[in-house]
Amino acid sequence: MDQALEGVKVLDFSQLLQGPYATQMMGDLGADVIKIERIGSGDIYRGMTFFNQWIAGDESPCFMAWNRNKRSLAVDMKSEQGKEIIYRLAKDADVIMENFRPGVMSRLGYGYEDIKKINPGIIYCSASGWGDDGPYLSRPGQDLLVQSVSGAIMTSGKKSDGPVAIGTALCDQVNGLNSVYAILAALYYREKTGKGQEIKTNLLSSAISFQMQDYFTIQNLGTAFERPESNLGHPGNGAPFGMYQTKDGYLTIAMSPWPRLVEALGDDSLMQYNDPQVLFDHRDRIHRIIEAITVTRTTDEWLEIMLGLDLWVAKVNDQKEVVNDPQVIHNHTFVEIEHPKAGKIKVTNIPFTMSETPGQIKRPSPMIGEHGEDILTELGYGKEEIESLIADNVISIEKLK
Amino acid sequence: MDQALEGVKVLDFSQLLQGPYATQMMGDLGADVIKIERIGSGDIYRGMTFFNQWIAGDESPCFMAWNRNKRSLAVDMKSEQGKEIIYRLAKDADVIMENFRPGVMSRLGYGYEDIKKINPGIIYCSASGWGDDGPYLSRPGQDLLVQSVSGAIMTSGKKSDGPVAIGTALCDQVNGLNSVYAILAALYYREKTGKGQEIKTNLLSSAISFQMQDYFTIQNLGTAFERPESNLGHPGNGAPFGMYQTKDGYLTIAMSPWPRLVEALGDDSLMQYNDPQVLFDHRDRIHRIIEAITVTRTTDEWLEIMLGLDLWVAKVNDQKEVVNDPQVIHNHTFVEIEHPKAGKIKVTNIPFTMSETPGQIKRPSPMIGEHGEDILTELGYGKEEIESLIADNVISIEKLK
Repeated sequence: MDQALEGVKVLDFSQLLQGPYATQMMGDLGADVIKIERIGSGDIYRGMTFFNQWIAGDESPCFMAWNRNKRSLAVDMKSEQGKEIIYRLAKDADVIMENFRPGVMSRLGYGYEDIKKINPGIIYCSASGWGDDGPYLSRPGQDLLVQSVSGAIMTSGKKSDGPVAIGTALCDQVNGLNSVYAILAALYYREKTGKGQEIKTNLLSSAISFQMQDYFTIQNLGTAFERPESNLGHPGNGAPFGMYQTKDGYLTIAMSPWPRLVEALGDDSLMQYNDPQVLFDHRDRIHRIIEAITVTRTTDEWLEIMLGLDLWVAKVNDQKEVVNDPQVIHNHTFVEIEHPKAGKIKVTNIPFTMSETPGQIKRPSPMIGEHGEDILTELGYGKEEIESLIADNVISIEKLK
Repeated sequence: MDQALEGVKVLDFSQLLQGPYATQMMGDLGADVIKIERIGSGDIYRGMTFFNQWIAGDESPCFMAWNRNKRSLAVDMKSEQGKEIIYRLAKDADVIMENFRPGVMSRLGYGYEDIKKINPGIIYCSASGWGDDGPYLSRPGQDLLVQSVSGAIMTSGKKSDGPVAIGTALCDQVNGLNSVYAILAALYYREKTGKGQEIKTNLLSSAISFQMQDYFTIQNLGTAFERPESNLGHPGNGAPFGMYQTKDGYLTIAMSPWPRLVEALGDDSLMQYNDPQVLFDHRDRIHRIIEAITVTRTTDEWLEIMLGLDLWVAKVNDQKEVVNDPQVIHNHTFVEIEHPKAGKIKVTNIPFTMSETPGQIKRPSPMIGEHGEDILTELGYGKEEIESLIADNVISIEKLK
């Protein structure tokens, strides 16, 4: 075994973001992920993009980002022959992942109870927006909507801002991570006991759980989660925790002993604020006072002075600077792979190392149904059967000319 | 086995946030997590808090949030007798988690190479700030600093804002999740092969990897990641994706077919913008136009109209409203547990269900060294030996009077 999840078969009915991220993580560690897609249009995310721009004509960067290390099978899930294919795949699968609205998979004949009959050891993970039932059951569950309901949208920015969306798909991605955490724990349990099980995750619970520390604090202290009015780093922290304009950019100061920071700033009169209660109560005013000093030098000048005093500081990078940051380059955070249609593309590497079973990026995101022939051949279908399934529109195979 | 990770022994040297979150997740699923703390002051996080307020006098809500389901052993890691205790614990451990700066554990005699000698099957996870080596090796690695270097701080808010900190500990928590993902995959691999391994995670790589879709897009399209100037939801999206003021709060609109939204808003002239390129290019202006309409009704009125048309919309909750949200109550997202010093406390529940091995909250966060006697007794130490270890300041046990 070269990879930790080698031999693990994942049947992936998910689309958009949370489910595909979860299965991509398993693929990164060697699982065989078979993505079930709709004939014709495939994963809905293939039709959505950012900046209203596309790669190589009509490929979605959003889709491409979350679907490497997978094979695609495009199949008519409602046809009898399609069902036969999916049941045969499910019989040998270790994990099923899906993120349809609750109830859809059961109506199609692919619910946990259906699959369990043919594969009692299956680990079946359903990821929904709001939970498996309850008042929001019929509502659309999407990242920004869940940011709004979970309070995540009220954690960032300034008091006078109103809601501030977190500019990554926080809820989707955290629930993708939680889904993998539960699935891998269930895999371990199955190794010990032979038993499979059903897992249900949802965006809302993951989003709130991700704010565990914040909710713990406000509920048990009875305080409001009021954001500062200045550019500080967290509603719960006092000055100096925050971002400060410099002559040429921004400097971030995290927890740092006040007297040492005062020394770096070179104004002894600031020692009058050397009290955690004062630094909290007057945080906005103190932020302005510090910033009036930080604007007098460049970020690099401040870094040299402050890192020399072992203060907790860093430069603020924009995305272009991130890509060229010396530590990011050192870490090999971005790597180039080949995509059959788009040519060389840059992707984010697996974010950790494993000494025995390193993650690997073996495949770019698939074309719709690209691996249909291989997958059906592995299931025992003959060449002629496959051709007739294509002719009957049970499966479709997109290949590059 | 009632829980998925029952029988898994985790020796946890980590403190502050990322490591303790990772080990808490394993504890939530039944692992036996032994937290190694400093004699006297314990985990550094015990001395830090939010809003400059404390629970039950001097307990930190930040610490309490990330340390449930653990037992604490306070031990002098540098003493010979302390080493003996730790080696005996390490010999039987399945997982070691630590987040000191790189090199510290090896200098103390607890590096991967040291532990591997006495326990070749160990899964040893080191979580650092910037990576295991490289130009930032000696710099402090902390969540807000990593938000700054990774670009995460430039994803939220408006173009004119400058950096906007994400008001949860994004990098710490995502790396906690990634650490668990790697550890559980390694556990599965060890079940298959008997082999342990070393895992290295870091905040910076996790923070960038969490922005995978954003970096994929900007690097492969060659576009800038420019935030909108209005209250829209993501730099990559056009109108209407964003938050809108209503008569009494805020309404969030996610991807929704423009003609149907125009119908809901009741102004046919808006159909002139029915083009994805126009909705992107003029997103700020269109946001203002929509908001001029949304302010005329309450959020609930808009929800009724728009959900009726199957538009993707939700209410924006502040944190107090979240706690009372009907779906949150339905999901049992918050539960009450008993803490020996603080009494009844409210905590966030495990964010998913598992049919065979549900997560459980069995213990509140421990006092410093609270479980020293039990842990040493399990290791085979006798009552008198334990008393003399306490007398020699090798271990300490904090108990409530």
